[in-house]
Amino acid sequence: MNRITAIDVRDVRFPTSRQLDGSDAMNPDPDYSAAYVVLRTDAGEEGHGFVFTIGRGNDVQTAAIGSLSHLVVGRDADEVVADLGRFARDLVRDSQLRWLGPEKGVLHMAVGAVVNAAWDLRCQRDGKPLWKLLADLSPEEVVDLVDFRYLTDVLDRDRALDLLRAAADGKADRERVLREEGFPAYTTTPGWLGYDDEKLARLCREAVADGFDHVKLKVGASLEDDVRRCRIARDVLGPDVTISVDANQRWEVAEAIRWVGELTRFGIRWIEEPTSPDDILGHRAVREAVAPVQVATGEHVHNRVMFKQLLAAGAIDVCQIDATRVGGVNENIAILLLAAQHGVPVSPHAGGVGLCELVQHLAMFDHIALGTPLTGRWIEYVDHLHEHFVVPTDVRGARYYPPVRPGTGARMHPRSLADHTFPDGPVWAQHA
Amino acid sequence: MNRITAIDVRDVRFPTSRQLDGSDAMNPDPDYSAAYVVLRTDAGEEGHGFVFTIGRGNDVQTAAIGSLSHLVVGRDADEVVADLGRFARDLVRDSQLRWLGPEKGVLHMAVGAVVNAAWDLRCQRDGKPLWKLLADLSPEEVVDLVDFRYLTDVLDRDRALDLLRAAADGKADRERVLREEGFPAYTTTPGWLGYDDEKLARLCREAVADGFDHVKLKVGASLEDDVRRCRIARDVLGPDVTISVDANQRWEVAEAIRWVGELTRFGIRWIEEPTSPDDILGHRAVREAVAPVQVATGEHVHNRVMFKQLLAAGAIDVCQIDATRVGGVNENIAILLLAAQHGVPVSPHAGGVGLCELVQHLAMFDHIALGTPLTGRWIEYVDHLHEHFVVPTDVRGARYYPPVRPGTGARMHPRSLADHTFPDGPVWAQHA
Repeated sequence: MNRITAIDVRDVRFPTSRQLDGSDAMNPDPDYSAAYVVLRTDAGEEGHGFVFTIGRGNDVQTAAIGSLSHLVVGRDADEVVADLGRFARDLVRDSQLRWLGPEKGVLHMAVGAVVNAAWDLRCQRDGKPLWKLLADLSPEEVVDLVDFRYLTDVLDRDRALDLLRAAADGKADRERVLREEGFPAYTTTPGWLGYDDEKLARLCREAVADGFDHVKLKVGASLEDDVRRCRIARDVLGPDVTISVDANQRWEVAEAIRWVGELTRFGIRWIEEPTSPDDILGHRAVREAVAPVQVATGEHVHNRVMFKQLLAAGAIDVCQIDATRVGGVNENIAILLLAAQHGVPVSPHAGGVGLCELVQHLAMFDHIALGTPLTGRWIEYVDHLHEHFVVPTDVRGARYYPPVRPGTGARMHPRSLADHTFPDGPVWAQHA
Repeated sequence: MNRITAIDVRDVRFPTSRQLDGSDAMNPDPDYSAAYVVLRTDAGEEGHGFVFTIGRGNDVQTAAIGSLSHLVVGRDADEVVADLGRFARDLVRDSQLRWLGPEKGVLHMAVGAVVNAAWDLRCQRDGKPLWKLLADLSPEEVVDLVDFRYLTDVLDRDRALDLLRAAADGKADRERVLREEGFPAYTTTPGWLGYDDEKLARLCREAVADGFDHVKLKVGASLEDDVRRCRIARDVLGPDVTISVDANQRWEVAEAIRWVGELTRFGIRWIEEPTSPDDILGHRAVREAVAPVQVATGEHVHNRVMFKQLLAAGAIDVCQIDATRVGGVNENIAILLLAAQHGVPVSPHAGGVGLCELVQHLAMFDHIALGTPLTGRWIEYVDHLHEHFVVPTDVRGARYYPPVRPGTGARMHPRSLADHTFPDGPVWAQHA
């Protein structure tokens, strides 16, 4: 038997706060970080995964991943990759650990990292990138991956099968076109709050030159600043480029409605995270008030049950899955199915460190296997930290081109891991 | 200056799974545990607090509490206890740590433990039990404790002041009667799923003999068993004792409706945790279908924003606050205010280890300061593990009598802490 012999965990942090990359109204000084996990087997195979965090607490996140060891180490790796639906359910259902969520926060993200590492192991074995591995599964194999617990009043196995079967025609064509033309991207690079107006204008010009038709700006700290920055962006970008804004949960419901009202004149496509990600009814109230501006959320929505409600309540126009917030690939498939059922487009959250590398696979699966269109959908793109990944994103002309090499995208270069290990790696030790 | 010099954290676990105490449909074998924290000051003062967990993962919870040290150690203890509203907000708003929730799961419970420890420090200084300290605050002092972020569409400072001022008359009378007559309790002692029918019947008889008028049974694993156990309980308890049932999140929405329908004939007051605590709309659907059986939840509801929606959506009949799930005393006051505003009675969750000791203070504050009636409200009671506490509950004749000695109730005996420290304390070392 080929056993899983270890869960190796490492606290990896990038000192991004030194340049205010990633600064927004709620997160003024993030140090993009990864609670990084490697599953190892007797046969010398590896599966890599991680949780993205923004600095402090990454040690707690690594401890949480380690706390899952008893559910993983000693298992037959062949059985694990042959039934990843069961593996994911087993990790979620440890009753003592479940108490610490349930299915939310640090413990749930830890489950996601380990589940994703097991997917990486399977991708390496099959010699496929994740998007292709998922796209090649039959509808029955896909639904076997999903934990329908707490979803069945809205989505059950049969309904999910219907969605997948209805999209079976045209899969090969969609895959071919995707390989040739890529998946649309929007850019958040110009819009961080910590950048001055000149840098904003320069980065907007560069975005247009790079082919982007959709730019997102951070807002929410100062209305006056936001009006000025939206005006600069619109002036530089011209009338044909889409602009969205992101308040990173900064507002109350009424405040969101007023503030967005002041920005509408600049032609805003969506307002992202107007308020608490837990406030389903609040999002619905904002959506009703700010239309035709759309409401987007998801990067902090902690599991499929919350997405079920956001969708069923008509609270969002745009569903923003995140690769490391929920319980891994499996739960994200559940969320993609829920969104498809409600006809709500998925435009994934990315950026951070490695989120682009991971989440592109899920968006590509969504398009190929569920037949969702490429118009009106974009994967977020930020051009930071890709150099640390073994299979970095291939973004050209504002399109994500499907990865060719095997894996989920999670693997960082050994040197990057060593350099950025916290607190003893050279990047941190020399700064201390 | 009198500084906070340390956050000492300890992993304390009780081997309750050996007797199946606390066994239910989701948690077959809990080891009741506490991630225990002591704040220490230059002057030698101590403030104690903890997070209740059920075993594995208690180490992750202690790590999370430790991750808050930079926000606490070195602070002026006088300033902290003089403005506990600010202290609580500061702990929630560390932007890097917030990413790991936000305001949910392990990190948020860690905040709650530290906030509660600071309350314990203040209680020791003032020489008051928490319930009395809170009841003696002015309406303005109470609202200064509350973080109204994400609540203002439903409850703001002015509306909260109105609620408190409207209840000012009669405070002294309510306090006097509470001291004389106590606060009603219900018991969960007979109803654990791991107990056989004889033990269930015997414990039901003892509950009646002890004066209880309300008994709760665990359900949800087997309908046949549940029907038989409800029948036994009703036969033993007679027609006048209230029976509630608790499914501990075991069901889907439709399943909950069907299952409760089968138990209604035994005269059920409330169904507790019918499904996922995240499923606000699901709870509403259950509530609409099973009336007049009431729907109760809260012990796993992770913050005030979720309670806001459960209440605003008309999803629950009974609001079950928990002393260590949310961000401490302050956030529980917000939740009590929300419940009072919606006219929904609060019947706190307790049991575990120390939850009775803690949560009674909040229920007593609710009654005295918000004028909520004692009829139709009960604090949960389970007669386990009280002997480990310096100020154990004083429950007689199925009533909680207000603690007289200072503190929040969190302090365990030093010997209990030492014996049950995991994994090296004698209780665990001898079992290993």
